[in-house]
Amino acid sequence: MSSAENFDRAALEQLVTKRFFYAPSFQIYGGVAGLYDYGPTGCALLNNIISVWRNHFVLEEEMLEVDTSIMTTHDVLKTSGHVDKFADYMCKDLKNGEIFRADHVVEAVLEARLQGDKEARAAKAGKTAEQIAAEAAEDASKVDKKKKKKKGVVVAVELADDVRKAYEETLAQIDNYNGEELAAIMKKFDIRSPESGNELSEPKEFNLMFESSIGPTGHLKGYLRPETAQGQFLNFKKLLEFNNDKMPFASAQVGRSFRNEISPRSGLLRVREFTMAEIEHYVDPENKQHPKFVDVKDVVLTLLPKDVQLGGKTETVDMTIGEAVEKKIVDNETLGYFMARIYLFLEKIGIKRDRLRFRQHMDNEMAHYACDCWDAEIKTSYGWIECVGCADRSAYDLTVHSKRTGEKLVVREQLPEPRTVELWQVEINKKTFGPKFKKDAKAVEETLNSLSEDKYAQLAKELETAGVGSIEVNGQTFEVTKDHITVKRGTVTEHVREYTPNVIEPSFGIGRILYSLLEHSWWVREDDEARNVLSFPSVVAPFKCCVLPLSGNAVFEPFVRKFSRELRQAGISTRTDDSKASIGRRYARNDELGIPYAITIDFDTVKDNTVTLRERDSTKQIRDTFENILKILRDA
Amino acid sequence: MSSAENFDRAALEQLVTKRFFYAPSFQIYGGVAGLYDYGPTGCALLNNIISVWRNHFVLEEEMLEVDTSIMTTHDVLKTSGHVDKFADYMCKDLKNGEIFRADHVVEAVLEARLQGDKEARAAKAGKTAEQIAAEAAEDASKVDKKKKKKKGVVVAVELADDVRKAYEETLAQIDNYNGEELAAIMKKFDIRSPESGNELSEPKEFNLMFESSIGPTGHLKGYLRPETAQGQFLNFKKLLEFNNDKMPFASAQVGRSFRNEISPRSGLLRVREFTMAEIEHYVDPENKQHPKFVDVKDVVLTLLPKDVQLGGKTETVDMTIGEAVEKKIVDNETLGYFMARIYLFLEKIGIKRDRLRFRQHMDNEMAHYACDCWDAEIKTSYGWIECVGCADRSAYDLTVHSKRTGEKLVVREQLPEPRTVELWQVEINKKTFGPKFKKDAKAVEETLNSLSEDKYAQLAKELETAGVGSIEVNGQTFEVTKDHITVKRGTVTEHVREYTPNVIEPSFGIGRILYSLLEHSWWVREDDEARNVLSFPSVVAPFKCCVLPLSGNAVFEPFVRKFSRELRQAGISTRTDDSKASIGRRYARNDELGIPYAITIDFDTVKDNTVTLRERDSTKQIRDTFENILKILRDA
Repeated sequence: MSSAENFDRAALEQLVTKRFFYAPSFQIYGGVAGLYDYGPTGCALLNNIISVWRNHFVLEEEMLEVDTSIMTTHDVLKTSGHVDKFADYMCKDLKNGEIFRADHVVEAVLEARLQGDKEARAAKAGKTAEQIAAEAAEDASKVDKKKKKKKGVVVAVELADDVRKAYEETLAQIDNYNGEELAAIMKKFDIRSPESGNELSEPKEFNLMFESSIGPTGHLKGYLRPETAQGQFLNFKKLLEFNNDKMPFASAQVGRSFRNEISPRSGLLRVREFTMAEIEHYVDPENKQHPKFVDVKDVVLTLLPKDVQLGGKTETVDMTIGEAVEKKIVDNETLGYFMARIYLFLEKIGIKRDRLRFRQHMDNEMAHYACDCWDAEIKTSYGWIECVGCADRSAYDLTVHSKRTGEKLVVREQLPEPRTVELWQVEINKKTFGPKFKKDAKAVEETLNSLSEDKYAQLAKELETAGVGSIEVNGQTFEVTKDHITVKRGTVTEHVREYTPNVIEPSFGIGRILYSLLEHSWWVREDDEARNVLSFPSVVAPFKCCVLPLSGNAVFEPFVRKFSRELRQAGISTRTDDSKASIGRRYARNDELGIPYAITIDFDTVKDNTVTLRERDSTKQIRDTFENILKILRDA
Repeated sequence: MSSAENFDRAALEQLVTKRFFYAPSFQIYGGVAGLYDYGPTGCALLNNIISVWRNHFVLEEEMLEVDTSIMTTHDVLKTSGHVDKFADYMCKDLKNGEIFRADHVVEAVLEARLQGDKEARAAKAGKTAEQIAAEAAEDASKVDKKKKKKKGVVVAVELADDVRKAYEETLAQIDNYNGEELAAIMKKFDIRSPESGNELSEPKEFNLMFESSIGPTGHLKGYLRPETAQGQFLNFKKLLEFNNDKMPFASAQVGRSFRNEISPRSGLLRVREFTMAEIEHYVDPENKQHPKFVDVKDVVLTLLPKDVQLGGKTETVDMTIGEAVEKKIVDNETLGYFMARIYLFLEKIGIKRDRLRFRQHMDNEMAHYACDCWDAEIKTSYGWIECVGCADRSAYDLTVHSKRTGEKLVVREQLPEPRTVELWQVEINKKTFGPKFKKDAKAVEETLNSLSEDKYAQLAKELETAGVGSIEVNGQTFEVTKDHITVKRGTVTEHVREYTPNVIEPSFGIGRILYSLLEHSWWVREDDEARNVLSFPSVVAPFKCCVLPLSGNAVFEPFVRKFSRELRQAGISTRTDDSKASIGRRYARNDELGIPYAITIDFDTVKDNTVTLRERDSTKQIRDTFENILKILRDA
């Protein structure tokens, strides 16, 4: 296999195009950045990856798979936080209007300056142009970035040591900055357009959702969903009921999501429309143990924790997931269980373990809903790519939707025996309360009865010390005094425990996984013709077997039909290649399509029903009756 | 099974909700018309229908499946005709602003008036209210409409005979009217809002595509695709190449499409977002025979040809597809082949043949791109529903995209031997041509060299009779005379034949099929509790087997785990139901989920490894070892 170190991406891209794995959408119209079509090979690969995923996760764990709407109303995504927070920062070339993603442009410019510094120092040290180029290539392959952005123009200018250090520290934390910080960095380092050298506008938020309007009135705003998760959360109550109220359980969904990227590049890695597979595992916040954790605790994962990154470093550590959870590097068993299961899934479909790591998110980098997050990152020629996010979304989504709609999204758990608990309680003095709050009395009372324990404690303290406390009701602040209410500890007997479950969410970007798999599967056979091979595992190969008649002679036709039919009936997907090319050329084509087996029909077949079976990676061939070969393939 | 005649739709809807087959999207936010989420049962049913479809069509015929973008640029859909023509007519209540689909409102009002007429006549004839109601119910069940619209208010007023006849003729052709015709009808019959009685605006076109904007500039307009077909046509050249330039072949796609319906009703039958499965079969326009037609020619289909409908009737005829093609009722073998294959597919998944017919489109009803079209319509409690369209789109799409982009979308076929053909040829008199047309000379010459044979014949005739002919170049008309050109017949030797293939398109609305299947599969067991059963065939049932431990006793747990795992490994999807309900109640739940088999684990299982297998429809039970039961299920 080609390693990432000396990767000839142009050659792979040529293969991808030639064998129509994917291509820009509307290519005959010139295409649009960030939109791709999968051809027959890519589509079969995609479907097979999804099929393995469904078996590995949904069927194995009896998850509740749903299929919800892509078009989503404004209200839902306002509540979930996406309308306000699902944005990137963009800045505009003040002269020609070209638009850039702010963090990408900072990264491109600083990387170019550092590269220029390196070249200037090397030149001073008297190195040759070739040496410099070789070192630069080596450096580039080492860059630990999730994605490599379009490079700025490299000019050989030496930098002061403190400047260089400042650039390096900025780059190590590039995913960690908000808009204001990016603006400050752009000002401080005089970041200009890497294309034109013109000044850039201040970074401005750009919401990444595609907007549309539902129905003929034009008044009902909708967005294309940015993730499949919300459709799952909104159905939580129905799903829990479907699961006979048993916890923990998971829902799952495979489907298209959309992000209106500012300036998509990097092929399949940053696109505007993509297939996701997401799991929402609902768990008791007081007990995030997982019954099957024991099955995976010895799986060794490569980890990159957040404190290492905050120190500006990228050194990983290999550790069993059991140890990582025990040491609290990974927060809890359920999160750890899914990280291990994600690893096993990726390994099954052909991702190489030495090019796979789990990176923990830094605090500012985390999505607005997450409280801990580990990305499965896969190394490609673009650097380390986030392919699976595994986030603990806590109770965020269920809580906000419940609050907004008034629908209770909770689990009610019958306690094995009643328990008495000490809780804060509020007593309302009806005589003074009503007259004081008048028309607001009901709303204030409701709020007073549903505060968090912390808030009660605070209120009790305020009343005790100042005799007056404040609460917020629907955005308005009210003052309550000791005359209106009493807040004190009291004992309650509970038969049922009610709680909002936390959500552990493994979220898979199928297109990114597919692209990474192409890189990890591709190698070049070192024979006289240096031929491409894509060594997909059988489970995901676009077709499992190719059927090749020796020539266009009509005598082979009934065999092609019969064998193809029997292979299909045995669940082995086939492709017939009865083109006029030589067998050798057709084998080569097979290898490029990543088909693990080929069956050749020749004149002996007509006589004695034997065929030749060829294996893709070894090119080894055996001869046997079709029936025996079929048995081999069925078990392969 | 319940027949459509006495169908209790409310009871089925209750079951659909209770077992979460589907539900309105964002229901806790109040929902939005025309958007639905599939729950675990509906999603599994959907996935299984798609899986059977893929096996029956894509794998069986080695179709080239693709997966293309949903977000589509304006240019593509402008060329395809959707920007200009993919519209319905809407009209607005002039007082309260309520919006209706024009054809639906005409239909609702006229049907209500006819019903009023019937009641008035019956009353005059002295019938009782009960008799009238019974007859009305019977009539309603007979209404041969694709969809039943919201009824207007029925007032018992007798109509003159000629008025009644005019209403009936209008209704029989309701799908056949354009906007002007609808406006005329609304005026003539004084159609007002059936809700408020207010006047309505003139019908106005409303484009049914959801519009959005791609990228941060706001200048690149995009639409959500209204069909998956365009993505296939745009890739035609790549697909033909992938198929080693062999014809005929088909591409296929399963995916989401969108229509921003004016006023969606009827549950899953008229929605704004839906899963389609579409096949584009590319065929030589001079030879629409199909090599496998012989395999299906004896399949008997129920047909409703267009001339019958234009006569205001709905009588069908049963006929083999062989005879239908021979008699030219169905235009050609390829269209007929797919109609038969569609029938076999629908039968396989459980659609009843006596509630399935193929209806030919009338001329005005046809989509703008089609030249012949047969819909597979399934009878439900909403009337006859179009579930699969099978259209001959001719060379429409490839031609317009080719013309717009300049990309050749043609097949080049090496002729077995060169042939001489007589064609019209143009000779240009350079001396006079250039000076006459000046800067337009090149464009005019190009057009003259690429006219159709018919146009050459016409031009030759014009030149011969009048000495002058006219041609259109980029929308401008030019006159040419005998001085400029000579048009005459000449002989040409061809080695290659070049043609734009025609497209036969079977297009499946998966949601509609799923809903129809629910109706066809549902019945009520006439035992003491009158329990619901959904008799899905095994191939599409949401789960194939349910595993039921007798009780929550821990001794059963290892058996549940082991059996479930082995069932899954054998490819049998399972659901564990270890809730506390009695076995009887859990069997009943099973029947409502449509699970064909249930395995019960009891204390004997612990002793001797035997289990009880129960079959859903017969409720028959047998007892055997788990291993033997597994064998039975594997073959079922």
